[in-house]
Amino acid sequence: MIEIATNRSARESIREIADQIPAIAPQWPERALRRLDNLTKPPGSLGRLEEIAARLAGIQQKDVLDCSNKAIFTLAADHGVTEEGVSAYPKAVTGQMVRNFLQGGAAVNVLCRQFGIEVVVVDIGVDGTMDLAARLVKRKVANGTRNMTRGPAMDENQLAAALQVGVELAAGAAEQGRTLIGTGEMGIGNTTVTSAITTVLTGRPASQVTGMGTGLDFAGVERKIAVIERAIAVNRPDPSDPFDILQKVGGFEIAGLTGLMLGGGARRMAVIVDGFIATAAAALACAIEPRVGAFLFAAHRSSEPGHEALLELIGQRPLLDLKMRLGEGTGAALAMAVIESAAKLFNEMATFSSAHVSGALS
Amino acid sequence: MIEIATNRSARESIREIADQIPAIAPQWPERALRRLDNLTKPPGSLGRLEEIAARLAGIQQKDVLDCSNKAIFTLAADHGVTEEGVSAYPKAVTGQMVRNFLQGGAAVNVLCRQFGIEVVVVDIGVDGTMDLAARLVKRKVANGTRNMTRGPAMDENQLAAALQVGVELAAGAAEQGRTLIGTGEMGIGNTTVTSAITTVLTGRPASQVTGMGTGLDFAGVERKIAVIERAIAVNRPDPSDPFDILQKVGGFEIAGLTGLMLGGGARRMAVIVDGFIATAAAALACAIEPRVGAFLFAAHRSSEPGHEALLELIGQRPLLDLKMRLGEGTGAALAMAVIESAAKLFNEMATFSSAHVSGALS
Repeated sequence: MIEIATNRSARESIREIADQIPAIAPQWPERALRRLDNLTKPPGSLGRLEEIAARLAGIQQKDVLDCSNKAIFTLAADHGVTEEGVSAYPKAVTGQMVRNFLQGGAAVNVLCRQFGIEVVVVDIGVDGTMDLAARLVKRKVANGTRNMTRGPAMDENQLAAALQVGVELAAGAAEQGRTLIGTGEMGIGNTTVTSAITTVLTGRPASQVTGMGTGLDFAGVERKIAVIERAIAVNRPDPSDPFDILQKVGGFEIAGLTGLMLGGGARRMAVIVDGFIATAAAALACAIEPRVGAFLFAAHRSSEPGHEALLELIGQRPLLDLKMRLGEGTGAALAMAVIESAAKLFNEMATFSSAHVSGALS
Repeated sequence: MIEIATNRSARESIREIADQIPAIAPQWPERALRRLDNLTKPPGSLGRLEEIAARLAGIQQKDVLDCSNKAIFTLAADHGVTEEGVSAYPKAVTGQMVRNFLQGGAAVNVLCRQFGIEVVVVDIGVDGTMDLAARLVKRKVANGTRNMTRGPAMDENQLAAALQVGVELAAGAAEQGRTLIGTGEMGIGNTTVTSAITTVLTGRPASQVTGMGTGLDFAGVERKIAVIERAIAVNRPDPSDPFDILQKVGGFEIAGLTGLMLGGGARRMAVIVDGFIATAAAALACAIEPRVGAFLFAAHRSSEPGHEALLELIGQRPLLDLKMRLGEGTGAALAMAVIESAAKLFNEMATFSSAHVSGALS
């Protein structure tokens, strides 16, 4: 078999970003843990909030943790595979929900208003033009991917473009002083794509990592599994090559989120990984550059059955388990509030000496 | 054996409150679930947030859920059993932490500032007088309980008084228009008391439901278990009588929280149950009047080993699991933010028709 170098430009430009992702210097988390032990509480009694604060200290390299400027990037795209009848909703809902995001009526808007998070809505590949254009970030790669059961979902230029959108969103966020960024997505058909990616990455059968998505019945899930198996048989993505997986059975929003995570790590930002679909992007980002894992926080455990396998790949346990399966960035928004709690406790709690509280008996 | 009627006044006055706790009319949660299915999301995709919204609708009997006025009641008291060396911290820390609460430096203060929750600090039985008196709610029943290894922790008048403090706090909260109230506590020695209550209520051995508390080592936990066994052997509390349990192996803050929960239910307020200690109060409240359970929300899973047994008794699965074991109301504060999210999603999300989003394919 002759190897042909595909996606050379995507690989090269992403490698350049990935090489900029720093390793975490252990002295910052260690120093943070020492400070946590001086706060007016028994050592370790804030549980995972202490672990979050220490991780953030390593990312930000600061003694006062900064969660003041938060945004969730909700990337929307369509998927050619919806032709195969894999979703409970018509494809038009992708664009309709983008309008809903821009009007502030979706779940992610409500949660972001509650917690002081900006929602940045990005058209990275919705099929059709959006009115209400003013507040939409227009970075459309194409009018949706191609049907992956008939060949690769995207060509190599499209893959490079979608990854680059994410990298540039992260760079822009860093320039605006964002300190926490969250990942969200909207795309009818994208749990099918994500289950395909999960099947390839984990080597598990599609039937184990495919769920009801937005609400398929049993027969619908069976059909979805068959579609995923066909897409993999037709494309034969290389499990060891995240670029190959993304191009053949990926989606524009997933590639964009992969780029956003790598770019976020390169700019020392904490990136909150929403649910099933965002975790596929995280697993691909970690396959490209394992150092990015230190910048990622898994937000919540989705009720999609493939999520656990992806969480194992990135070695994370999510902060929340509320049986959500909506996407958009809704889990990331709730997790951001918890992460901000960890930062505020670290910053604002009194110490034993400042509050004149006795320490533990020896 | 001759039965002597003890705690008659506590029983009678609490029964009067308990009888005022309404049953939840099913039409309100049902109506809420119908509304949730019209919001722009797949049915059920907000997971437990939908269940919370439906429960709140049943409690508040409203179409627009109200979380605008939130408070956490942190009840502080001392425990005579600390003489037995059951805590990693000296008893003086109870009063020192009350001062810390009043100065805003404790963990519960930080979280409540973040989420717009008022902290109400109540001295229901701290040993010693508090300076910084202005913002402290002074409802001291006594300077701590008696050592339960030598007889009942409190007498019947003290039990009646402590329960009454909680009932009156709930009534005052309702009059101030509180819509969500949370339970917190501070009391060196109170995980020992709570493990004793759990042993009696569940019939499990003390060794299964006793943990490190604020940070005991292995030998310390062994000693704590022996102390609990001794207190139960000396007092022989009746497992079927919550008043008897509270008087013999309880604490003032726990009795106060039991009263607060019953009073909260009687005034149709949602009550957020913090961790291990607050869940013991919840289990006792449910033993007094099972209808109160519909008004309670278990906030988080504590890392204390006895917590699970208490959660089973009240039939709840907590919203959060962050390995916290601090008390004060810290878990309740985080859970309140999640409950407010559920309410805001219910109130503010667009419907399919208002946002012109297509519904599911038939």
